Amino acid sequence: MVYNMKSIFACEKKNFSNWYNEILKTADLIDLRYNVKGFIVYRPWSMHIIKKIYQLWEQELEKNGHKPVLFPVVIPPENFEKEREHVKGFKPEVFWITEAGDNKIERLALRPTSETAFYQLYSIWVRSYADMPLKCYQSCAVYRYETKATKPLMRGREFLWIEAHDVFETEQEAINQVRQDMKITEKIFGQLSIPFIFFQRPAWDKFAGAVNTYASDTLMPDGRILQLPSTHYLGQNFSKPFDVKFIDKDGEEKYAYQTCYGPPISRTFAALISIHGDSKGLILPFDIAPTQIIIIPIIFDESKDIVMKAVEKIKNMLNNYRVEIDDSEKRSGEKFYYWEMKGVPIRIEIGPKDVKKNQVVIVSRVDGKKKTVKHNNLIKEIKYMEKEILKKLKENADNYFNSMITDANNVDKVKKVLEGKGGFIRVNFCSIEKHGEKCAETLKEKTGAEVRGIRFDKKEKPNGKCIVCGKKASYVVWVGRAY
Amino acid sequence: MVYNMKSIFACEKKNFSNWYNEILKTADLIDLRYNVKGFIVYRPWSMHIIKKIYQLWEQELEKNGHKPVLFPVVIPPENFEKEREHVKGFKPEVFWITEAGDNKIERLALRPTSETAFYQLYSIWVRSYADMPLKCYQSCAVYRYETKATKPLMRGREFLWIEAHDVFETEQEAINQVRQDMKITEKIFGQLSIPFIFFQRPAWDKFAGAVNTYASDTLMPDGRILQLPSTHYLGQNFSKPFDVKFIDKDGEEKYAYQTCYGPPISRTFAALISIHGDSKGLILPFDIAPTQIIIIPIIFDESKDIVMKAVEKIKNMLNNYRVEIDDSEKRSGEKFYYWEMKGVPIRIEIGPKDVKKNQVVIVSRVDGKKKTVKHNNLIKEIKYMEKEILKKLKENADNYFNSMITDANNVDKVKKVLEGKGGFIRVNFCSIEKHGEKCAETLKEKTGAEVRGIRFDKKEKPNGKCIVCGKKASYVVWVGRAY
Repeated sequence: MVYNMKSIFACEKKNFSNWYNEILKTADLIDLRYNVKGFIVYRPWSMHIIKKIYQLWEQELEKNGHKPVLFPVVIPPENFEKEREHVKGFKPEVFWITEAGDNKIERLALRPTSETAFYQLYSIWVRSYADMPLKCYQSCAVYRYETKATKPLMRGREFLWIEAHDVFETEQEAINQVRQDMKITEKIFGQLSIPFIFFQRPAWDKFAGAVNTYASDTLMPDGRILQLPSTHYLGQNFSKPFDVKFIDKDGEEKYAYQTCYGPPISRTFAALISIHGDSKGLILPFDIAPTQIIIIPIIFDESKDIVMKAVEKIKNMLNNYRVEIDDSEKRSGEKFYYWEMKGVPIRIEIGPKDVKKNQVVIVSRVDGKKKTVKHNNLIKEIKYMEKEILKKLKENADNYFNSMITDANNVDKVKKVLEGKGGFIRVNFCSIEKHGEKCAETLKEKTGAEVRGIRFDKKEKPNGKCIVCGKKASYVVWVGRAY
Repeated sequence: MVYNMKSIFACEKKNFSNWYNEILKTADLIDLRYNVKGFIVYRPWSMHIIKKIYQLWEQELEKNGHKPVLFPVVIPPENFEKEREHVKGFKPEVFWITEAGDNKIERLALRPTSETAFYQLYSIWVRSYADMPLKCYQSCAVYRYETKATKPLMRGREFLWIEAHDVFETEQEAINQVRQDMKITEKIFGQLSIPFIFFQRPAWDKFAGAVNTYASDTLMPDGRILQLPSTHYLGQNFSKPFDVKFIDKDGEEKYAYQTCYGPPISRTFAALISIHGDSKGLILPFDIAPTQIIIIPIIFDESKDIVMKAVEKIKNMLNNYRVEIDDSEKRSGEKFYYWEMKGVPIRIEIGPKDVKKNQVVIVSRVDGKKKTVKHNNLIKEIKYMEKEILKKLKENADNYFNSMITDANNVDKVKKVLEGKGGFIRVNFCSIEKHGEKCAETLKEKTGAEVRGIRFDKKEKPNGKCIVCGKKASYVVWVGRAY
């Protein structure tokens, strides 16, 4: 075998933007040549992964008492305009249907998010305390007329997500749900080895209509922040205009408390690609890889039959996994590079010598280590590697994430860090309420950093003055440049 | 136990329209109270079933070499208007997006079907003979501004389907694909016990842009026809305007041959509900029932603990099935009626006497027959019933279907049958080419019957004259009133 050929994907990850665009193309993930700006085409390798990500989340939501529903893609203005803050936030981004056939019709919004679709019916479904908790989710695409630069899978005009909409009798139950949403996020990202932190967003960056927004942020390899799932405590902000009320046990009519949760499927995929990939291409976590194990027969004319027989036998042994055989005409080295680029977590090589010794060679995508394994140890070894790969991916991802958190006690340092490695910067800040917004604007103007909010999982005590206005700091906020 | 209560769903199926609307509501399948005409809300019991129907089809399509993709919901006019017949057929039904935020934007069609989205990229993806067959599918909703009366799940302005789009080197391969699409349909409808016949549609009722359309029809309980999946041989009608061409083995540049296939998920669900349901409510085939087995403990205060222990044990024994326990406060009779109405195929009752004898009582939803079964025979019995239920559903459905096929040798008889039981009527007909259209129009005016085409699976030889114009008949066509 000749190994001196170049990898078919030799794109340094240091130039992340270039690397990202190249991998989308080389691995046949996304086609950007569809002729409408901001709309992308998902190719098969993507769709297999996307479907698996959907499954993980749907299963977890259902385990936690959510039920699947599907609401229309269109929202009439009478719904859309019911909650004042919500309409103010989303109106600039709404696509409007105004014609059908040759007729003008009453305008309909293409859903940018579905609070105002769901809650019209929730006001009918919820009658008494016995109808709650009401917890439904839908898996769908949403549409936003983004004016910021779009980036495939990270920010587009059509993106895939899940939205869960929950209704409760009491404030406390709603707040518990917000915590459960965070736990669900934690569980899924555990299976995908994606590091993140949940922040309570500042008042000026809340979901339009929410009382409070909690959003998880991760870091891309270029040090920019990518927002992942967010969960919103809506209080009674929607239940009042939408009339979601119930007769309580005491016979009184009360407005319900609501939450909503939005796991972004396209973005989770973007995070996966970006965080785990390397200069050979994709690296996919075991759970969501369309092909988990690729078997490559090392074929010479005289031993072809015995090798292929062993290959089939090994494939059958592994029938609990998603296994493919690459018996194409390509040279073995070329096959190795191809499947490495596609991110398949485990490669098995079987040559005539291996057949004689009842063994195979196993290679892990995450560190390239080779092992020779006897047939009767194979299943055990795969199970071990499955965990090892996830662990290694997590180690690598966590190491990077943790190395990208910097403290700064003045605006200049923030700027300097962002001009260098980027990442999260912790600073003392006057307020995350409305009156902190001005400092946030100043900071953004001077450094490009956005205030992502305060950590939710642990209280961080400020020690000193707001780095912008110099007043007494009430919070430690995390800032950074974001996608 | 008291059995004298009324069923919670006592709606005679004879008045099908009434029965259908009532079951959608009582079984919490569809909510029609969303405030945009022709758009419906899928509730959890529906969505669980819909997801299972999608799964069946997706698995089968993938087994047959199709790969999942996802194209944008919007189609620019430059694509949409490329194939003359296609645009003529679909233009009256297209929803147009013309504004975004406060801006007028270049109009975009909301996909009514996606040929003109897919084929723009297919012209890039297909370069040489080695790129074919290219077989992709997407699971999505499509949007049509229906002017005919809408009927939930059967005809709406938003409906769920799959669309598969395939490209081949030769005409023969494309025609083989059409046959494979029929086989896939047959397999899925076998799992759902839905009877159907594939017809070649007459020239005037082809898919807009197709060379030939083959569509499967089933019958609703009111004797009206419901169209199910259709598969279309497109020839080079789209490959030419969309420039889907390839360099063949001989070095020549050639246009490809195409097919498309559209399994309608909402309609399959409508057919399931309508064909199998009875005066107690839904009856769901085992494969797609959200709950396959409902266990109802027969509880008296003094024996509650030992019964619940047995119930848990039985549930664990059945962990390969989707099993629920109804231990609510309702009376047993009420529970029986409720789960019968929801269509759960198997009910298990466990009372204190059963516990003592290591037995349970099993009831089949399809015929209401009761059996007492020992614990150690339970799995075997469930496996047997699984097949029996499917068989019974098939028998019932086939018996009805076959009883609704009538021959007629004149227009009056067609009219009389349609005013009576309805169904399919076989008649001699002059032509299914363009020049038969006038006779079809006359027939429709006089009787309300549409010409559904000629059987695809077997040649039927006409014997006499066209029942409308009296000229020599070239075909036996099937006619009837359709949804």
